[in-house]
Amino acid sequence: MPCIMKGLPMISFESDYNTGAHPRVLQALMDTNRIPAPGYGEDPFTKQAARKILDACELEDGSVFFLSGGTQTNAVVLSSLLKPYEGVVAAESGHIAVHEAGAVEHTGHKVLTLPSHEGKMHADELEAFAEAFYRDGNHEHMVFPGAVYISQPTELGSLYSKGELQDLYAVCQRYGMALYVDGARLAFALASSEADFALPDLARLCDVFYIGGTKCGALCGEAVVFTHGNVPEHFVPIIKQQGALMAKGRLCGVQFDALFTDDLYFEIGKEALKRAGELKEVLKEAGLPFFYESPTNQQFVIIDDETMELLKQEVAFSFWETHKPGYTVIRFVTGWSTGKNDIEALRSIFKRFKG
Amino acid sequence: MPCIMKGLPMISFESDYNTGAHPRVLQALMDTNRIPAPGYGEDPFTKQAARKILDACELEDGSVFFLSGGTQTNAVVLSSLLKPYEGVVAAESGHIAVHEAGAVEHTGHKVLTLPSHEGKMHADELEAFAEAFYRDGNHEHMVFPGAVYISQPTELGSLYSKGELQDLYAVCQRYGMALYVDGARLAFALASSEADFALPDLARLCDVFYIGGTKCGALCGEAVVFTHGNVPEHFVPIIKQQGALMAKGRLCGVQFDALFTDDLYFEIGKEALKRAGELKEVLKEAGLPFFYESPTNQQFVIIDDETMELLKQEVAFSFWETHKPGYTVIRFVTGWSTGKNDIEALRSIFKRFKG
Amino acid sequence: MPCIMKGLPMISFESDYNTGAHPRVLQALMDTNRIPAPGYGEDPFTKQAARKILDACELEDGSVFFLSGGTQTNAVVLSSLLKPYEGVVAAESGHIAVHEAGAVEHTGHKVLTLPSHEGKMHADELEAFAEAFYRDGNHEHMVFPGAVYISQPTELGSLYSKGELQDLYAVCQRYGMALYVDGARLAFALASSEADFALPDLARLCDVFYIGGTKCGALCGEAVVFTHGNVPEHFVPIIKQQGALMAKGRLCGVQFDALFTDDLYFEIGKEALKRAGELKEVLKEAGLPFFYESPTNQQFVIIDDETMELLKQEVAFSFWETHKPGYTVIRFVTGWSTGKNDIEALRSIFKRFKG
Amino acid sequence: MPCIMKGLPMISFESDYNTGAHPRVLQALMDTNRIPAPGYGEDPFTKQAARKILDACELEDGSVFFLSGGTQTNAVVLSSLLKPYEGVVAAESGHIAVHEAGAVEHTGHKVLTLPSHEGKMHADELEAFAEAFYRDGNHEHMVFPGAVYISQPTELGSLYSKGELQDLYAVCQRYGMALYVDGARLAFALASSEADFALPDLARLCDVFYIGGTKCGALCGEAVVFTHGNVPEHFVPIIKQQGALMAKGRLCGVQFDALFTDDLYFEIGKEALKRAGELKEVLKEAGLPFFYESPTNQQFVIIDDETMELLKQEVAFSFWETHKPGYTVIRFVTGWSTGKNDIEALRSIFKRFKG
Repeated sequence: MPCIMKGLPMISFESDYNTGAHPRVLQALMDTNRIPAPGYGEDPFTKQAARKILDACELEDGSVFFLSGGTQTNAVVLSSLLKPYEGVVAAESGHIAVHEAGAVEHTGHKVLTLPSHEGKMHADELEAFAEAFYRDGNHEHMVFPGAVYISQPTELGSLYSKGELQDLYAVCQRYGMALYVDGARLAFALASSEADFALPDLARLCDVFYIGGTKCGALCGEAVVFTHGNVPEHFVPIIKQQGALMAKGRLCGVQFDALFTDDLYFEIGKEALKRAGELKEVLKEAGLPFFYESPTNQQFVIIDDETMELLKQEVAFSFWETHKPGYTVIRFVTGWSTGKNDIEALRSIFKRFKG
Repeated sequence: MPCIMKGLPMISFESDYNTGAHPRVLQALMDTNRIPAPGYGEDPFTKQAARKILDACELEDGSVFFLSGGTQTNAVVLSSLLKPYEGVVAAESGHIAVHEAGAVEHTGHKVLTLPSHEGKMHADELEAFAEAFYRDGNHEHMVFPGAVYISQPTELGSLYSKGELQDLYAVCQRYGMALYVDGARLAFALASSEADFALPDLARLCDVFYIGGTKCGALCGEAVVFTHGNVPEHFVPIIKQQGALMAKGRLCGVQFDALFTDDLYFEIGKEALKRAGELKEVLKEAGLPFFYESPTNQQFVIIDDETMELLKQEVAFSFWETHKPGYTVIRFVTGWSTGKNDIEALRSIFKRFKG
Repeated sequence: MPCIMKGLPMISFESDYNTGAHPRVLQALMDTNRIPAPGYGEDPFTKQAARKILDACELEDGSVFFLSGGTQTNAVVLSSLLKPYEGVVAAESGHIAVHEAGAVEHTGHKVLTLPSHEGKMHADELEAFAEAFYRDGNHEHMVFPGAVYISQPTELGSLYSKGELQDLYAVCQRYGMALYVDGARLAFALASSEADFALPDLARLCDVFYIGGTKCGALCGEAVVFTHGNVPEHFVPIIKQQGALMAKGRLCGVQFDALFTDDLYFEIGKEALKRAGELKEVLKEAGLPFFYESPTNQQFVIIDDETMELLKQEVAFSFWETHKPGYTVIRFVTGWSTGKNDIEALRSIFKRFKG
Repeated sequence: MPCIMKGLPMISFESDYNTGAHPRVLQALMDTNRIPAPGYGEDPFTKQAARKILDACELEDGSVFFLSGGTQTNAVVLSSLLKPYEGVVAAESGHIAVHEAGAVEHTGHKVLTLPSHEGKMHADELEAFAEAFYRDGNHEHMVFPGAVYISQPTELGSLYSKGELQDLYAVCQRYGMALYVDGARLAFALASSEADFALPDLARLCDVFYIGGTKCGALCGEAVVFTHGNVPEHFVPIIKQQGALMAKGRLCGVQFDALFTDDLYFEIGKEALKRAGELKEVLKEAGLPFFYESPTNQQFVIIDDETMELLKQEVAFSFWETHKPGYTVIRFVTGWSTGKNDIEALRSIFKRFKG
């Protein structure tokens, strides 16, 4: 199939979802391929994956459901958490606030925004918002804050510390808001040297979160974890009704079973962060100033547009935003498939540019 | 991974989605696994798959989009076809009318039902319905029929003939209703010896249809085909908004590329129908009366409850409905993974029961 | 303003909403017109009206809200009663099933239909439906029956007896379905000589109902009564969100205060039913066969199309449905403003036709 | 009915919707009360009112529909203008953005916000927003700006000049966004001495707007005007589906017929603005600093909390927002029923406070 590769750069730091699945995930799909099993998540692979995830989360009263993608997961979970008159609070840079084509609003709920601090929401600003809402004599004409959305890591690759999670969760509990954590890239948060929390901490400090598969080594799939016996009633029909119940539920089950066997999920995170560390060095050697030097697998640098155009010919990366006339912020991402050879190739390119 | 198989019967005719993917589909995923490519369906695999599908459909003005599952596809496509005040007409046995947990209504649209004739809608009844609607002086207080939903094959495995499709499409065009065909099991319709139509006929005789992947040899995925330059404006944001845009769009692209290479999709259909033919013989030998002897891959027989309980211990099949006290309608389905050995094993079991 | 009356027949039996308000209702609006009071239903008129209604219903734990119209009321109340995965069960002739332009589906919920028996749902058929639903192994892929909608009187003017209400409510309670009664024309049910129930009976035998104002002597407005301490949490924001919270809530408050002062609401019902009795005599004298001779204020007769055309020149009535070629079912309705003179005028017309 | 007035202050500047209807509006309701006419807006009063409004707007290709309230009108009109993947742009202080309990989001659409400048949106900021949107390479994952919402006057009582409207409309047309003007208090904009536009100017410079009745002298009702042959297809079923079609459509028809007879609507505006001018003088005499001295019927002053508490005993006004510790912004509003005696009474109170 080489003919279809024309025009694709040989190396890519464009995203963590631009190759297939980790080999051990693919192998599990092959190993189980001919074993018949019921559909719609009733298969033993799915059940085993759920058990392994709950064990890894150290949850006794948790439940796990598998959905196919992140935007879908956010919409299904949030709409199941919210009462009709409630909205969800997010940082103004939050994925649901900006880059999901209005999927939350499509379910009838408003996204209420707070300032973003390197992608994060501050607990004191959340508290002030909730306090002001209930103090406002007109609040019955306003959208109630029913849940809070954060992502770990954030869209910018930053991390909430354990203390920050505790503070946010405390505010949420004080004001009857469910705390939901989007973990699309959770593997890269857990593996960060700056992370002062482990998976069980995260599980304990929120009401529901999802463990991202698509961006962390699977072909597709996100594992939604309700943490404290709080699964919405009849959640399966809710999933089905939103078109998110997979007939071959085993596709997610088998993959997550593999991801949570022998710590593969954590290993994928660690390897990608090693590459991210090496990537940072290369970018520094190249003299590119950092727009944001994240503790996870996404790195943001400022580049002049001329160099950027040259670079495009040889490497895939993402446009992030215009920095100032003539300069652009671009993003480099590492993932399960980023090899040392990719790093070295990038180093060579920058050297050539300098030379 | 044998430990997780406990309790699963060794042979299964339960459904066409209870094993993984056809080996050539899996192989394509392995072959392309490390090739980096853009996300969200912008990858070359997806583009190539779309081209091959349009060629197979002989469509010059068609467009193809890939979604992950059937209910999702029905909801996304129908809601994009319908104006807010319109509903979709379906047979009362139609999947959207009964077994999708209200996914169409969840998008705000009513499912208007007509009688089911072995799973099919009659063109004259559709015409009478539309005519009566517009004649009714109160029709501005009623739900307008904006689209028509049929499935090919139907939920019962029956087929619309080319003539029936022509008649339905003519009524649709007369009354400004889009005709949408759910092809979840399309491979098994196309391969039927009773089919008097080919893929290009179907493509010509409707406004939009989908080519089912999940039940026809893929891990997941359905290919939506708009047939006549009629893609809804900004369909990608519509897909995204409904949580149906896959980040790793390549997962569907690679699979459908394989399914439409060397006629694999059609071959999967033919093989499964060969098995269905052999299955019918086994069921007849076993003396089980047919509830509906379909021309496709689903067969419905009536069985006494005592035998059914014995059978359950050794074979997986589906409960369909209670026939009369003491008797049940059960369904046997063949798929890409049904082997001659499965047929022979079933034959042996029935022989043993008789002996 | 006589110029704008051209083309309007002098007498009308077209509906019970084709004149303004009962004089005592209008008088109350005039009397209170300049008294300043808070908006959004926080005014003393509204509070007093609610108290009077609860007294008339003999409810200790009830709550009353005022909305502007029937379809709005049905959609707001039902959507507040239903969980996302639930639908509402109605007779197939029910107003929400046929004549509300899909307003319930617009809120995301399916209307599940049962056979109509002169407009009524049978408790045993409801029970069989609910029992079959929960017995069906696939019911998590189906729409759950979360509430039941009936109207009293029905769209055809028929009445549920107290025993029938008891039976329906018992089934509802057995299966966890809320019973909701549409009382758009409740005044005419309560006043019927065939009614074996009073307002407190109705209030006791359902979870929520509404007392129709628009068709029973008000300019607009329906009083929703939650009967047993079961108001949905934050119902005011729900009303507001659906665009149904009136800024001048007093408009409904003042009118319902008048309707429930000195039994005006009941008196309006009685007077209209007296007229309906006289109307029946006139129709019988005219030799028109009854399609349905209702115990309330709507009467349905069969008329040959030639006579119908002549009649149209002099009297306003409603087309109901085609009976058979050459014959039509037409509807005559009495209301608060139907006078004896209208009856006599109609008698004269028919006499003239005969003569 | 004096008993129910207990606790109501004798004079009120709380809002322009806290009394009933202008006497000439009430008189029209009385005059037409017994004339039978068809329901659902098919009556001659409604048709005549629509004609008079189109004449007043100098629109040849316009259409008028009557709805019962403002939030309802905003939701019905905006959802009919927007495609599913589109949102509406509003100032962050806009009524739909803050005080409608998420009614727009309830219809599935996002409210996209821009900075508020004394309640107004700036055309250059709108243009920059639209330009940035389409330049963003990810915009297919974002909510498209499909319409623009402004109010005239704004929530703060400020006015867009004719030039500002022209600029906004030009940007809207350039980017394919419909311009919608919320005229809940339009009478008070048109009557302002600072208004450099007349009704026909407004009608010409937007795609759809509504002429507020509820706050401008009617019991209820808003007149939606599509200005340029651009009524959404089947708008009546859309209204019906959202529960906004009044059975007694005549209620709005008769009232707006009266409002647009002998320039009553404009006269109501003028009288209320005369009172607003007198009110401003009283507030200035009282030494209260203005938070915003509006050119229309709402005035915002800063008051110390001690005086505010005293004032509350004798006059009704609205709390607006906390200004700084110990000081509050309060709102005084004049309307059709504000009399010179109310102004004089307020003057006396303030004098007494000073004395």
